[in-house]
Amino acid sequence: MADLHLVVDRAAGGVAAQIARELREAVRRGRLAAGVRLPASRELARDLGLSRGVVVEAYEQLVAEGFLISRTGVGTTVAPAAGRPAALPGGLPGGLSRPPDSATSPADPGSTSPAEGREPYHGRRSTSPDLRAFPRERWLASMRRTLAALPVEALDYGDPGGVSALREELAAYLGRVRAADVTPDNLVIVGGVAQGLSLTVQALAGRLPQARAHHDLDWFVRRVEHPVPSPGRILLAVEDPAGVRQLPLLRAAGADLVAVPADDEGIDVEALAGTGARAVMLTPAHQYPTGVVLSPRRRAELIEWAVATDAMILEDDYDAEFRFDRDPVGCLQGLAADRVVLVGSVSKSLAPGLRLGWAVAPPRIAGSLRLARGELDMGSPVLEQYVLADFVATGDYDRHLRRMRRQYRARRDALVLALGEHLPEITVRGVSAGLNLFAELPYGWDEASVVARAEECGLAVEPVGPMRHAPGPPALLMGFARLPEHRADQAVRALASALGARGELRFRLETPG
Amino acid sequence: MADLHLVVDRAAGGVAAQIARELREAVRRGRLAAGVRLPASRELARDLGLSRGVVVEAYEQLVAEGFLISRTGVGTTVAPAAGRPAALPGGLPGGLSRPPDSATSPADPGSTSPAEGREPYHGRRSTSPDLRAFPRERWLASMRRTLAALPVEALDYGDPGGVSALREELAAYLGRVRAADVTPDNLVIVGGVAQGLSLTVQALAGRLPQARAHHDLDWFVRRVEHPVPSPGRILLAVEDPAGVRQLPLLRAAGADLVAVPADDEGIDVEALAGTGARAVMLTPAHQYPTGVVLSPRRRAELIEWAVATDAMILEDDYDAEFRFDRDPVGCLQGLAADRVVLVGSVSKSLAPGLRLGWAVAPPRIAGSLRLARGELDMGSPVLEQYVLADFVATGDYDRHLRRMRRQYRARRDALVLALGEHLPEITVRGVSAGLNLFAELPYGWDEASVVARAEECGLAVEPVGPMRHAPGPPALLMGFARLPEHRADQAVRALASALGARGELRFRLETPG
Repeated sequence: MADLHLVVDRAAGGVAAQIARELREAVRRGRLAAGVRLPASRELARDLGLSRGVVVEAYEQLVAEGFLISRTGVGTTVAPAAGRPAALPGGLPGGLSRPPDSATSPADPGSTSPAEGREPYHGRRSTSPDLRAFPRERWLASMRRTLAALPVEALDYGDPGGVSALREELAAYLGRVRAADVTPDNLVIVGGVAQGLSLTVQALAGRLPQARAHHDLDWFVRRVEHPVPSPGRILLAVEDPAGVRQLPLLRAAGADLVAVPADDEGIDVEALAGTGARAVMLTPAHQYPTGVVLSPRRRAELIEWAVATDAMILEDDYDAEFRFDRDPVGCLQGLAADRVVLVGSVSKSLAPGLRLGWAVAPPRIAGSLRLARGELDMGSPVLEQYVLADFVATGDYDRHLRRMRRQYRARRDALVLALGEHLPEITVRGVSAGLNLFAELPYGWDEASVVARAEECGLAVEPVGPMRHAPGPPALLMGFARLPEHRADQAVRALASALGARGELRFRLETPG
Repeated sequence: MADLHLVVDRAAGGVAAQIARELREAVRRGRLAAGVRLPASRELARDLGLSRGVVVEAYEQLVAEGFLISRTGVGTTVAPAAGRPAALPGGLPGGLSRPPDSATSPADPGSTSPAEGREPYHGRRSTSPDLRAFPRERWLASMRRTLAALPVEALDYGDPGGVSALREELAAYLGRVRAADVTPDNLVIVGGVAQGLSLTVQALAGRLPQARAHHDLDWFVRRVEHPVPSPGRILLAVEDPAGVRQLPLLRAAGADLVAVPADDEGIDVEALAGTGARAVMLTPAHQYPTGVVLSPRRRAELIEWAVATDAMILEDDYDAEFRFDRDPVGCLQGLAADRVVLVGSVSKSLAPGLRLGWAVAPPRIAGSLRLARGELDMGSPVLEQYVLADFVATGDYDRHLRRMRRQYRARRDALVLALGEHLPEITVRGVSAGLNLFAELPYGWDEASVVARAEECGLAVEPVGPMRHAPGPPALLMGFARLPEHRADQAVRALASALGARGELRFRLETPG
């Protein structure tokens, strides 16, 4: 039984969250070792003079995050892979990139032509936030404060890894809200999740500088012909289904992709282990597109796999800000900071057009990303970095998120209600978080036709078929962020009627092939 | 003799500039073919009812830009390589990248370790603008107007090549002020000159997508081992001396570098031709660091070389906004739009921290850059693109540049005067433009020691030695943008006195080796 020293401030409120935070830190810092059994919730509640429900809530949160494991008959124990692994091969996993003297690497039969699949992706998506709600006045007020207070030298070339004011605000924010294990030094500002993922893959593939050095003054070359190493590639596992828009980007960065099924607990770690991949990219907070939250069991397995195989996990913290029915589940990165690169952005919380995001990574990878930005584009524009720092520091960011969470929850409820009423054949999943739901269609329905009808009825939808590697049941992604409550019923009723009038859509059997 | 149809609006003023513009367009569009002799200035002046000086000024401007050639006894003729070449192998010069099935390419003995020479460059430089003059209030006013007027969808993912409002404003601006041959479609917004150059080199080395295509849905790969082509490299010529900060970036992008001497007419084109390089990067408006403006003769030779060898010219439009003693010389790109990629930014005109720039390129390269940004970082943040568009459209940008030009000219004059008075041993060059001058030290002076003394006296200086490939006389780069007029005399006097008190600095002979 662990000897717990928990400091709880009853007056401060949020006691369950306080207990969870204390326990999380204890696990993370090694004070609670793997396998240690925690007091029964009833005992701990009595010791602390709290109601049992509060302790249960704290335990459940940590089980969901993968820090604790709860088993009938055994009680609650610290998860095997949680906390800082004792003897990890530190730094950049060298095994990830192919040997620099090798001229061969896995090819990608899907991209015989360099032009294939490379259309840039922009424009509205079913998963876009409601951009009418962008806080223009508050953003302008932050810009006004920033321009009034900014020292002159801040307008010069900045740290390519991001201005420190923003890295400090975000590190504090991610530690608090996402239970991330982060300091300003291992957080790098990037131009959104796309750039964060691209640079991370390049780092793992050995394509980025890995250390700082003096200026190389003998920088010219007389023409000499001899072999140059080909940039490395890595085998990167991605979930099936997954968002296809990021895939060309990942391949261009040096990743050969392999599909691993995601079921209703998230990615299948056993299947992952079978691929031989040395890195995996996934969306644990809200799987894209299914909306599944990675289960506690899978979290633990995934970390175990990464530690055992010296692999890295790329955590796309997709939609993490919008969790409706319970506290957000902490990020994977907080569970294994040496094994995870956490990438997030303000694209869902504020607007994609801001192109501001972050990557939290082990020190050597973070250093590579920073150096890479110094070579590539000299970092993100500084003014808006200061504005975002101000926006977070003043609490405007939290207030905006709370307002949007309320609004999106109401819109989700309206859409789910309408679907249940008018299209009960559709199974709705993944609704506890995010800006879209996963609508499974009955066997035989034709995705493309339903998408066409739904768009005619003003619904924001995307077919899931193209996101699948292995075939699966027909399904749609339905966005609710931009669908006002009062329009949901009408839109779904119109869709039901359009589908009813075309019975063949609802009952057409898929033809083989 | 050419039959000229020149439309001149006397009431509009700037008649010489009008004539220059008309003639430039006539050459560019092929109405005035290479070799055609223009009317004598006296004749044309009489025909147009203008003073001869006006025509002479227009001719001189076009000679300086390389559109015309003036030879004693022959008169003024259209330059051989000016205008659109008749039968160019169109599009991306395929010969630039090494064959994809070759695993060999020129190696770079200067970079045996991947980490060498890769320290990102930031912080203050001798060439930085005066950031105290950043127009904070006007910038905020543009932001206010932008946020008030911006349509909702503009906050979503934008065109990765840049928002059209800004591309239109900049295309018009660069055509007007830099005599660039540009439309909004062949202009791509980039995060500064660094990113523009990096992506251009990647395009020439065959590392970027070259065409749009449908989404590649068969995007997974089973692990298959067979050879993958190594990304191409190009042999890129750079000027000697040159700014060293960009060189690691260029090498990382796929360039093997070869040095070509720059003399007091700019780059030596004959030496360039001898290198076998298929691309060259240079600073024609104000050579960095010597301050030389590329001569008309060299401009013509350079274009001829590029056409004859199917090569590309990367024009870093460095310091082009600040030309003090005459009209700016038009950019090279305006002379041969098929052969030149023009890269510029607002780093000198507004602030480096904005990370906003442009690349003007032949359509296929421009298309590659746009696609590459779609894969890499999804483009630059949109809000500040709209703000800059507003800033240019309202004339605030021009007003700011005019104000700064006056201020910088006064500071330059004060520094040049003080150097002439207190340190006549120093030969000052490259003062007609830019934010720094080139100070040649007498034989035997020690650069590093003078730099140390100069910094103690409050002067912003950099040694030129590290920028040289071949040895050259000791010299400094001296910035004047941030040196108020009233402090120049005092600072230079202090330097003279510090050097006088240490005679060994002024008269020490260089030791061999």
